[in-house]
Amino acid sequence: MGQLAEATRRVGTARSIYLGLREQITGGVYAPGDSLPSSRALAEELGVSRTTVTTAFDQLISEGYVLVRQGARPVVAGNIGGVDSDLSHKSAPADPGLSAYAARAMALPPSHLARQKGLRYDFRYGDVAADDFPKLAWRKALTAAILARRERMGYGDAAGNENLRQALQGYLWRARGIRCDYQQIVVVNGSQQGLDLCARALLNPGDRIVVEEPCYAMARNIFVSLGAKPTTVACDSDGIDTSQLPTAEPHRFAFVTPSHQYPLGGILSIGRRRALLDWAENSDAYILEDDYDGEYRYDVRPIPPLYLSGRGRVIYIGTVSKTLSPTLRLGYLVLPPQLVEPLTRIKQLVDRQAPTFEQDALASLIESGTYERHVRKMRRLNGERRQAFLQAMGDVFGDRVEIVGTSAGLHVVVWFNEWKRQDETGLIEKARAAGIGIYPVSQLYAEASDRRAGFVFGYASMPLHDIPDGVRRLGQVLLS
Amino acid sequence: MGQLAEATRRVGTARSIYLGLREQITGGVYAPGDSLPSSRALAEELGVSRTTVTTAFDQLISEGYVLVRQGARPVVAGNIGGVDSDLSHKSAPADPGLSAYAARAMALPPSHLARQKGLRYDFRYGDVAADDFPKLAWRKALTAAILARRERMGYGDAAGNENLRQALQGYLWRARGIRCDYQQIVVVNGSQQGLDLCARALLNPGDRIVVEEPCYAMARNIFVSLGAKPTTVACDSDGIDTSQLPTAEPHRFAFVTPSHQYPLGGILSIGRRRALLDWAENSDAYILEDDYDGEYRYDVRPIPPLYLSGRGRVIYIGTVSKTLSPTLRLGYLVLPPQLVEPLTRIKQLVDRQAPTFEQDALASLIESGTYERHVRKMRRLNGERRQAFLQAMGDVFGDRVEIVGTSAGLHVVVWFNEWKRQDETGLIEKARAAGIGIYPVSQLYAEASDRRAGFVFGYASMPLHDIPDGVRRLGQVLLS
Repeated sequence: MGQLAEATRRVGTARSIYLGLREQITGGVYAPGDSLPSSRALAEELGVSRTTVTTAFDQLISEGYVLVRQGARPVVAGNIGGVDSDLSHKSAPADPGLSAYAARAMALPPSHLARQKGLRYDFRYGDVAADDFPKLAWRKALTAAILARRERMGYGDAAGNENLRQALQGYLWRARGIRCDYQQIVVVNGSQQGLDLCARALLNPGDRIVVEEPCYAMARNIFVSLGAKPTTVACDSDGIDTSQLPTAEPHRFAFVTPSHQYPLGGILSIGRRRALLDWAENSDAYILEDDYDGEYRYDVRPIPPLYLSGRGRVIYIGTVSKTLSPTLRLGYLVLPPQLVEPLTRIKQLVDRQAPTFEQDALASLIESGTYERHVRKMRRLNGERRQAFLQAMGDVFGDRVEIVGTSAGLHVVVWFNEWKRQDETGLIEKARAAGIGIYPVSQLYAEASDRRAGFVFGYASMPLHDIPDGVRRLGQVLLS
Repeated sequence: MGQLAEATRRVGTARSIYLGLREQITGGVYAPGDSLPSSRALAEELGVSRTTVTTAFDQLISEGYVLVRQGARPVVAGNIGGVDSDLSHKSAPADPGLSAYAARAMALPPSHLARQKGLRYDFRYGDVAADDFPKLAWRKALTAAILARRERMGYGDAAGNENLRQALQGYLWRARGIRCDYQQIVVVNGSQQGLDLCARALLNPGDRIVVEEPCYAMARNIFVSLGAKPTTVACDSDGIDTSQLPTAEPHRFAFVTPSHQYPLGGILSIGRRRALLDWAENSDAYILEDDYDGEYRYDVRPIPPLYLSGRGRVIYIGTVSKTLSPTLRLGYLVLPPQLVEPLTRIKQLVDRQAPTFEQDALASLIESGTYERHVRKMRRLNGERRQAFLQAMGDVFGDRVEIVGTSAGLHVVVWFNEWKRQDETGLIEKARAAGIGIYPVSQLYAEASDRRAGFVFGYASMPLHDIPDGVRRLGQVLLS
């Protein structure tokens, strides 16, 4: 292009920029006193030279629309005819106008589990140690998924990639004894989303449901926000006490953790399994089975999921949050056939599908056997952590504590015999001042009955050698 | 370990396995006729030798619990005392017992946009070409995120990683002129989730809302499933016709696509921008601004988001689905301050947070400038595709068609002057038989009024040279 042509083109472009900005100023998009983008930013954004933008700015300045001071961004001038200068300064509505759902969500008690900075020893449950994550295997699987030959990138099956659902089908059979069609599996963004989708599919505001007492708070919060009325049923060392299941009023579902009650750690006994399934049958209710840490058991006896015995009534919820990482946000539902289509539709409505590359990566880890090797390794490592924790607690606190739920999972509940529930906050503060994070069991109870002080201790995120050190330090702090 | 000790240990383990399986059989977990896991699978799962498992199986066989045939998996025997063999065979409930929400979702018309296999030319809108995706840059950013030094892997801020929200803040200012605090940004799983979260935060069943006519169907489906009553407002080449906005009844929000109306492609005029914002102010309503393809415009005049002028009333919804890939499931909301906390809480309730590694990867692409370079490249590439498409349509169909919405975005609507709405299905079938995917505009209209046949043509997923070929082939098929 000759120099003249180039200059003509530039002037044309500059004029378009000038007209566009002028329209925005007179239209009130930029109010008096507002900064315009810098010429450099605008040039980059528009893919034109900075000179072109400066030409446009010069025109605006000469016409009085824009003011400049040396070194500062150009600013829209005041008193420009036609500008509805109030428009952009109307204040936000005082009442945000929330739905009943959002209002209920906002009314929930704030979580004590909010992350605390600067803790030297953090017994927070739910985290996993970064060093445990199979970085190289995940990177390799994800890289292969990204580089895989595809024609186009578009939405796939809302229920999840077929390869992942088939891999999960095999895994669930091998690891958990679950036999299902892969089409009964819906891939979700972690068990939190799995529970939310189920609750949305089944609950109307005002419906009654059964929850364990104590109960995983983030699950109860989902149900309460949707307007459900929870009936609490106490748990002991055999899990939920089925003799207390309600029969007078209809209940939509029971949310349970039969393989390892959260947080108390009870394993649902055979008799109660039957009683719970009978209750569901007789009450025309579903069972939401949250198998959040079913991979972690420290004897050789597998704990079979309820799903195996409850065809048509039990929804099984699994996750890789405890085996790989909670930051991946991958989980899955195994659904009775009549719920597959509704849950798939709802998954599509709420976010179309889980991310494709990550689904492919997980499928490949499962198919290659890497996932199950990793699970076994994690079971061994976390068994060692558990052993170190229990040993140190015994050494330091002895008979002052009772520890429950030790046969499975990645956490235990420690009851402090000499302190009451009301002491928990003070103990937390004392521990925190010494750089130790401990988390009260009370917020998992719906009812504030008379109890000893109790804490949920998670150990899966701590280096092995930190565990006895942390427990000893906690002893120094609390027993001094 | 000596041979004797090793043998003793193995027998102890085998006995545990035997006892565990026996309990499951007598407890009805495995019913008569059910296969047990293979000894190889069980050995792998339990981390013991296959011999150990075989020892346990032998015991079960000798006691009559289990039958084996050569080469097949062991099977649970019939007539075992204590087995409640009905338990696992109760049929599923006839009525799935869906919530009102799920029932409304199930009542929605099925989408014509379901993927069709084996198409040679697919003008499906929403997909992007796999070759356009910056595979190497994404892999590099994601690898760095995976390998980054972290102490633990746990949940972060439900609103999104701070680094990503800060990067988006800068991007939104540079690219879209939006000035906001990074704390007003909530990272979501694509704009679909963004819309669902907003709708859940604001809508009660029975609430009225405004939607464009025609309207992005997957958005309307969210609202209708939540029980909203949509009032449709017609769109023309200047976007939504604000003179038709309802004033008699209260409306909760208007869902609009002002930068490039979907699907007709109109750009909201300055006068209508003001009218829409005034309507929101006077009606105490919000505006949901879906800026789904705001990065794609083919002249130098930027189309400023409504958000700029509508402080406190406008929720801005952005996505990387059109700039990177819809399969990533990453998007963001820019919220008025009074909605930040409610939306963050709801995001946490529904799935805790977006995946960490992917958030970090996107943050790093934006921070390094790679993202904006890629957007500019895509704008150029898709400008070429658009040009090729328009040229070919003109050559092949000439005056038989009217093409609208050509100044921005990744799609156009083509009206066929000689055919009626009722002909769309037949034309789709004809095209599909020739390996061409075309998609009717009718399903985006709430009302079935008298119209020409129209189709939404997406071109962003096609190789450039395929576009004229596909259009020519379509001409041969439809005009023959």
